[in-house]
Amino acid sequence: MKRIYFDNAATTPLDKDVLDVMLPYMTEKFGNPSSIYSYGRETRLAIETARKSVAKILNANPGEIFFTSGGTESSNTAIAAAIHNLGCRHIISSEIEHHATLHTVEHLHSKENVKLSNVRLLADGHVDPAHLRELLAGSKERCLVTLMHANNEIGNLLDIHAVGNLCKEFDAIFHSDTVQTVGHYPFDLRNTPVHFINGAGHKFHGPKGVGILYVNENVKITPLIQGGSQERNMRAGTENLYGIVGFAKALELATVHYEEYSKYINDLRMYMAEQLQQHIPGIGFNGDLYGRSLYTVLNVSFPKTEKSEMLLFNLDINGICASGGSACTSGADLGSHVIRAISSNPNHIAVRFSFSKNNTKEEVDEVVTKLKDII
Amino acid sequence: MKRIYFDNAATTPLDKDVLDVMLPYMTEKFGNPSSIYSYGRETRLAIETARKSVAKILNANPGEIFFTSGGTESSNTAIAAAIHNLGCRHIISSEIEHHATLHTVEHLHSKENVKLSNVRLLADGHVDPAHLRELLAGSKERCLVTLMHANNEIGNLLDIHAVGNLCKEFDAIFHSDTVQTVGHYPFDLRNTPVHFINGAGHKFHGPKGVGILYVNENVKITPLIQGGSQERNMRAGTENLYGIVGFAKALELATVHYEEYSKYINDLRMYMAEQLQQHIPGIGFNGDLYGRSLYTVLNVSFPKTEKSEMLLFNLDINGICASGGSACTSGADLGSHVIRAISSNPNHIAVRFSFSKNNTKEEVDEVVTKLKDII
Ligand SMILES: Cc1ncc(COP(=O)(O)O)c(C=O)c1O
Ligand SMILES: Cc1ncc(COP(=O)(O)O)c(C=O)c1O
Repeated sequence: MKRIYFDNAATTPLDKDVLDVMLPYMTEKFGNPSSIYSYGRETRLAIETARKSVAKILNANPGEIFFTSGGTESSNTAIAAAIHNLGCRHIISSEIEHHATLHTVEHLHSKENVKLSNVRLLADGHVDPAHLRELLAGSKERCLVTLMHANNEIGNLLDIHAVGNLCKEFDAIFHSDTVQTVGHYPFDLRNTPVHFINGAGHKFHGPKGVGILYVNENVKITPLIQGGSQERNMRAGTENLYGIVGFAKALELATVHYEEYSKYINDLRMYMAEQLQQHIPGIGFNGDLYGRSLYTVLNVSFPKTEKSEMLLFNLDINGICASGGSACTSGADLGSHVIRAISSNPNHIAVRFSFSKNNTKEEVDEVVTKLKDII
Repeated sequence: MKRIYFDNAATTPLDKDVLDVMLPYMTEKFGNPSSIYSYGRETRLAIETARKSVAKILNANPGEIFFTSGGTESSNTAIAAAIHNLGCRHIISSEIEHHATLHTVEHLHSKENVKLSNVRLLADGHVDPAHLRELLAGSKERCLVTLMHANNEIGNLLDIHAVGNLCKEFDAIFHSDTVQTVGHYPFDLRNTPVHFINGAGHKFHGPKGVGILYVNENVKITPLIQGGSQERNMRAGTENLYGIVGFAKALELATVHYEEYSKYINDLRMYMAEQLQQHIPGIGFNGDLYGRSLYTVLNVSFPKTEKSEMLLFNLDINGICASGGSACTSGADLGSHVIRAISSNPNHIAVRFSFSKNNTKEEVDEVVTKLKDII
């Protein structure tokens, strides 16, 4: 059976061109990058070249880019550092953050007595800026604001500049989880008021098991993982050499093709939205589809029926990959904390379709047809 | 120039057979293992199969094996958990641990006020068991004993059973850093009194960026990295799928060939020791070469001269990869903390040669000849 993969917000296939640049480092160029002989220096050079490339694309200094094992580790590092190194005793976050943020801030709240506030969400799922200002203004302690750039389930995009400027006004530390946007949007970090952002290679056709943490040069932090002096003492452990090389290549490709891919993917998404509205009665969309929204994600709300409750299951039987909540909890079948937070209507089933450059209009047509059949 | 790689304790080349099992997961089988559709289930299955294989080889339960980003992360997790979850307020360690342990325990000592003691070392670099007993007996608080199984620089092997039994007697938690021995020795964890061990794929011809943490089923801990429910809520973040698959394959190969490889490598090492003693005056060996010693490591002590001070550099020029200290600090050129701890003689230069199944007697001959020329 042909498979239709509409779950690119969960993970994306590795690009052939990315694999090709990784392979030499999985075969002959295997030296430990920390070694002093030329064999190690050549792999060290590969890592530093990757770092420079990533930094250039994001308009940051190479010294601000640290390679990690993924988006989750990066978020954990940033949030813990804000508390342990930067004097933050009050975290302002939201209910629709990824679990990498949610569970980390809950842990710090319950175990280290850090104050935790959730900023109010507007009906369209966006953060209420007035409430954020209120929280910041009312805080007696230094705040860490951790708000995601694009929501991985509903696609809502944060105005990172507006939030960053607000944080600046109140001397707050600002972390934005950009796992869904690095590799999907241009960044200009030298002109963005943010202290920490993160990325994960596998979200933009790069490798799994590798990510980045950007740490603004104006903040000094200590590592989450301690040991050897890798990553300038900021992230210990023998480097995931091919992962790092692959991350940089994937980001380069994403950047070169940004205009083309983003338009192509957004067109697919809007086409699917239109087709669904034409052919399936009663559907709606979660999030701010026609406003500030990630172009890869379409979160569809189906009226709850016996059939729609089995939707993901039936899509799977038909070879169609889509998702209910975020990938990392869908197994647990608890439903989506994001949908719960933005909607009080239990009579809907939310399904996320998320696209990549590899998808086609024909696939959309096929999925819409299948959805008609199923429902 | 032909390269001779005698730095296998730093990292090893990935086996072709390991790469071959990884490649399908870098191409068509890319689904997020947490996804519920069949595409995700097939990668989830690959991870669980890898876990079972690793568990079986180590004679542990699959529920005791957690995949991480490497040996360092695993050590960090175990040590932090002993303090935060298991009530340990006193760490007993040694001066010759890897930095992944050293820096982690120093951090807990200085930031969280945990007591820290170093067990005395005997002249041959082994831990003094009488002193360990003394420290345990004298401790008013629950202890974490963290002592490495094989030292990565001098190769000394700990009697893990004896130390484990001593820990048991005093209700201490025992972590042994087994990064140099997993994939090099058989393990029988069901019959080994240890709470935590760790491993890193790249030390035995597996991939970089992936490791394991074994957590004995009798201890319950919380994760170091929080977020999604991967690894049964013990290690959040999208899994390094191909890394995990490769780790298991590399461990399988190492296990199947253990008798053959270990004898072959040890013979090489002893042959080199003998040749060096015959041909180079004044040399000696650091560690317990003829006693309890890791068969992959030969740490040679050269009399300090103008020439021996340039030894690593000259070896490199001749295409020979060897190392001064551990890889992850050699760049910093601080010399080896291990050698400093076991030797008060500053008139020696220590060079570690470490071997794998890929090395040959001819390579040893060539290196010995080159060493004669250089010195
Ligand atoms: C004894 C020992 N422990 C821990 C580590 C850390 O492993 P990794 O660098 O793969 O995280 C190493 C190797 O670097 C080691 O030799
Ligand atoms: C918004 C967001 N943050 C963080 C993560 C975590 O990234 P990873 O699973 O690669 O660690 C993800 C994806 O899983 C995500 O979508």
